[in-house]
Order: sequence, then C-alpha cells, then structure tokens
Amino acid sequence: MSTVNVTCPLPHDSGDRVLLAHGEGARLTRRLIRDIVQPAFDNEFLAPLADAAVLPALGGPIVMTTDSYVVSPLFFPGGDIGKLAVHGTINDLAVCGAAPLYLSVALILEEGLPLDVLRRVVASIRDAAQACGVPVVTGDTKVVPRGAADGLFVCTTGLGRLTPGAALGADRVRPGDRILVSGTLGDHGIAVLAARTGLDLEPPPASDTASLFGLVEELLGAGIDVRFLRDPTRGGVSAALHEVVDQAGVSVLLEEQALPVAPGVRGACELLGLDPLYVANEGKLLAIVAPDDAERALACLRRHPLGARAALIGEVTPESPPEVCIRGLLGVVRVVDEPSGAPLPRIC
Amino acid sequence: MSTVNVTCPLPHDSGDRVLLAHGEGARLTRRLIRDIVQPAFDNEFLAPLADAAVLPALGGPIVMTTDSYVVSPLFFPGGDIGKLAVHGTINDLAVCGAAPLYLSVALILEEGLPLDVLRRVVASIRDAAQACGVPVVTGDTKVVPRGAADGLFVCTTGLGRLTPGAALGADRVRPGDRILVSGTLGDHGIAVLAARTGLDLEPPPASDTASLFGLVEELLGAGIDVRFLRDPTRGGVSAALHEVVDQAGVSVLLEEQALPVAPGVRGACELLGLDPLYVANEGKLLAIVAPDDAERALACLRRHPLGARAALIGEVTPESPPEVCIRGLLGVVRVVDEPSGAPLPRIC
Repeated sequence: MSTVNVTCPLPHDSGDRVLLAHGEGARLTRRLIRDIVQPAFDNEFLAPLADAAVLPALGGPIVMTTDSYVVSPLFFPGGDIGKLAVHGTINDLAVCGAAPLYLSVALILEEGLPLDVLRRVVASIRDAAQACGVPVVTGDTKVVPRGAADGLFVCTTGLGRLTPGAALGADRVRPGDRILVSGTLGDHGIAVLAARTGLDLEPPPASDTASLFGLVEELLGAGIDVRFLRDPTRGGVSAALHEVVDQAGVSVLLEEQALPVAPGVRGACELLGLDPLYVANEGKLLAIVAPDDAERALACLRRHPLGARAALIGEVTPESPPEVCIRGLLGVVRVVDEPSGAPLPRIC
Repeated sequence: MSTVNVTCPLPHDSGDRVLLAHGEGARLTRRLIRDIVQPAFDNEFLAPLADAAVLPALGGPIVMTTDSYVVSPLFFPGGDIGKLAVHGTINDLAVCGAAPLYLSVALILEEGLPLDVLRRVVASIRDAAQACGVPVVTGDTKVVPRGAADGLFVCTTGLGRLTPGAALGADRVRPGDRILVSGTLGDHGIAVLAARTGLDLEPPPASDTASLFGLVEELLGAGIDVRFLRDPTRGGVSAALHEVVDQAGVSVLLEEQALPVAPGVRGACELLGLDPLYVANEGKLLAIVAPDDAERALACLRRHPLGARAALIGEVTPESPPEVCIRGLLGVVRVVDEPSGAPLPRIC
C-alpha cells in the first residue's frame, strides 16, 4: 500500500468554473466553501464549518420544512433561484404560523457551472436571508458531472418557532369562512415563463418572490381568527384550495371579478391560454378567516407593503361533494378543476 | 379570463414512470405523495401533509445538518442512495455528539425515472430511518425534465439534541491525543466504484453504510474524554485529518501497519492505484480521544457490533507546520497530502 496522492491534475484554464473536484470534500471543496460560501453566510453557528450547526434550545413547539428549488432559468425578472430558495422555505414556515429562525442550504452544482453564477446565487441567498433576519447555519455542496444536473439546484430547510396561539389547518375551515389573497395572482409563474421562452411582454412581468412572514405576523398579531394559510406556489391558488376542500370536506366559491391580476399577467395568460388561478405565486398569501374577521383581515393585509392589492376573493360553502367553484363575470358558477398536468414545469 | 383547465393529457403508457406533472404540486403530485411517499413514512408529524412539520419543544441545544446525495449508481452492494441519505445525515449529527431526532427528505426526480426505482429508494429510506428510530417528518418532491438530472437526488436534513456534556471540536485536540477508527477503511468508496465500473472483485466489496450514533453513544456514555469525532466520507480519513490539523494547528502521525483495511478493498486499491486513506467511508467513526482514555475507548468501540475491527491508528503530535504524516511499513515517515482532485466523484 502506498500513500501516493491519486488526484487528477486540474486543467489550467478551469479557474472560473465548477470542477468535479470541487465536490470531493477535500482541498478544492474547502477552498470553494471558504472563498465563496462561508464569507456570504458568516455567522456564529456556521463559523465552525463543522458538518452540523449547534443551535440554542428552542422553547415551545418548533416547525421544520424542506424544499428543493430547480427553477429554470436561474435568473428571471424580480428574482432568482437563491431568493426563491430563501423565501419559499420561510413561507412554508410562515403559513404554519411559525417565525423563521434558521436555514440550511444544500447546493448541487453541475460541473462546468461558471463560478460567477455560483457567486451570484450565493450572494442572492445571503441578501434574502439577511433581509429576513434568518441566518444560514449549515450547508452542503455536491458536484455532479456535466449533464447530470442542469446548472444548479438548491435545497433549503427551515426551522421556526410556532407563534403562541396560532392554530392553523384545513381542519379548522368552516362554511361561511372568507377567503383572501394578499395581492395579484400569477406574477411569479408568468415572469419565469417569459424569461424562459423569451416572450416579450409589456410591461415585463416580475416575480413576486418575497417573505410572507411579515403579513402573517400582522394577521396573527391583530388577533384575527385565521383558520388556514398557504403560499399558493406550484398549481397556484387552485391547487391550494383543492387541498383545503379535500381535507376539510367543504366547498369554496370564488368571485372571478374579485381576483386581483396584474394587466401584464392577464395579457400573458390570455395569450397563452393559462388561468392565473393555476399559475404559481412566490410572494402571495392565501388566508381563510372567520366570517366576522374578514374585513379586519383585509385592512390588516392592505396596511402591509406587500398587501396593497389584497382582496377578498370568495367564501367557504357547505356544498357537497367538496368542490372549488367560481362565479364568472356573467354570474355563471363553474367548477374549477384541479390541475393534474404540467402547464409550467420547473417554476420553483 | 377563462377557467379552462390547461393541463396536458397524459400518455397512456406512462403509469410506471415519473412524469413532469408529478412535480407540479397538483393532483399527480398529491397522488405520488399519497401512494408512494406518505405510506412509507407514516408518523404523527408527517400525517397532516402540510408544507412543514410541527414538532415538540426541544430542551437543550439542538443540532441541525443537511446533505445532498447524488451517488451513482443508485444501488450498490451493501446499500443504496436511500440508506446513505439517512445514515449520512444521522452521522453528521452523531459526530457532533447529538442524538438524531427528526429527518426531512427532499427528492429531485428526473422525468422518466421508473416508479419502481422511486419505490425502492423510498422503502430504503423508510427502513433505514425506522431502524435508527428517527421519523421523516416533512419532505418535498420536485421533477425536472429528462436530462436535467441523473435519475434521482436526495437531500436530507437532520435535527438532533446535543448530548449533555459532549464538547467536541478540533479546537479541543491536543498533542498526545490518540486517533482511533471504528473499523476497516474505504469499504464504501470501493463498493460504489466496483458497482459503477463493473469491476469484478473477489470477495465483492460492500458499502459500510450505517448509523454511527450507537458507537458515539457508547463512547460518550462511558465518560471517555472524546475530543473530536468525524465520519470520514468524501476524501476519507485523510480529508478528515487535514481538517483537524488545519483547525487545531497540530500534526498527526499515523501508523500504516495499524490501518484496518479489508482484503478485497486492499486488493482493489492496489489494482486502481488508490490509497484507502483517501477513500470514502459511510459507516466508520474517526475518534480523537485523550491519551489516558485511548485503551478504554478502543475496548468500548470493539464491544459494539459495528466496531469489531476498531483500531488505534495514530496520535496527535506538536510538530509544526501542521501536517498529516504516516509511518510506513518500513518505518519511514511520509507526509500524507490533502487530496485536491476527484479520484472518486459521486461517491455519496
């Protein structure tokens, strides 16, 4: 047995791209982490660069969530995969009524990815996490050969603390409850689609990617009887409401004229034969509240910078079998089918 | 605006493969989760199928870790990507001195992946997690188009509770400390390499993938002054020890004749020009303990079923500059370089 070092020589012109060797856990991995990743996320928990982060005790119930992000393209008007990976996971905590506390970030990189792209994504993760006041406490980096992944995937896991008194869930939804959204529908999906296809829209749609925890804090802090919250991402408001009717055994009736949709998104949807109800949002809150609290909840959302275009869009009904329905502009009520196919793949 | 359902028709012969639509967050996603994923991981935290899991309060410091798994091939003698994703993340907790409590699992699937492969991996994750007594409390599934990922990637995040009194870290390592491993080196890396290349070895090497928490519990429970623990995965024992000498500003001297290596692995390494010190393990513990506790630590490891071939392999020295050295079979001391290249990509 010899101790000959069996590493491969590195090509000289490879300094600006991700190499397979960047994923091997040794010198180049450490250099990548130290030069690009760690300075971005510098905090007391991450600083030891161990394989795990030691965090203080958490009083009260904690909430854990995880999501992979595979959006294509990586950058689009209004955001990028980094922002999305921070906001999306924070939002999954927020709609449980949890204050986000910590994030972990796992990166899967394709060999050949320009290091500048990695730097931009890491900077974006850093900026979004800082703006949300949530430290990235641990992480991982893997590299797969050219062709084994498409550029860059991100997996974030979030830990949060449940807000005392928050009791949210589809099982708490009752007929008569009111349904609100915090703003215009479909912005994220159309922005990504336009960026991917080169579709030239005027005004150009921008992703709404944002942390929803501020909005959730407003609602819960005001003592509103919130029954259910969701960030309607993949499958849009339609998918989120189908989840509710499925679990709660109730129906919902939406008012088409009440749905807030930005003109650019409406135009793009008409052009493409899409319905904004099915298109992904990344910075919109769907809230179901007790009937008597609906107006107060609406005012609450509208006071927040992210909720200026909040709207009351429908109500929960006792109709059976459970269905999602919409009253159209001409007064006719139709069933909103659950999307089963893939109108917009790789949207997040 | 119309409410026309914009889903695509599904090909009739596609029932046994992953479709892009399985990732769209709507009906097919829910069916995939309900039919394949949820039954496997059934537990009170996952059952609500919300986007996050609500967990009880955790007294004492908590530990969080995350890792992506991109091993190729997905199945190999002794294990598969599912087992690896459970054990690897549990081991990152264990070597911090933390008892594993909860796991999250995020899957990135390539369109066209046979559902049977997904079922096998999910069953493997389930079995490994059950055997370790750690529930999978939340998860995520994304699908990317054919060619945008290689089959299946898994990202697991683990939460654990720090064992009271455990104070582990490279900063606690002192000259004179002894270095132990819990068993033979390089089994995992050679098993994956053999499976990937079709290399015909006799006896066929098997991955050592296993949870190390039992071994860690033994050591800490026996009151041994453990300074540092690591599971030497990517880059092997060499990479782990380079991390120590870098952080602690000490050197280490290994004894080549003391390194436990299985005959099949030794043969394969000689054939391939690899050094077992650089080859990944997925079920071996590297422990640095106070000098007076070394013999007791060795006995402790050997009492455990995973530690039958535990060995004392070297010691920490005050030599400067900090280096990893090895005394060869003929008594000559050489420097063990840090691996910088990619001898074995996609090993975990």
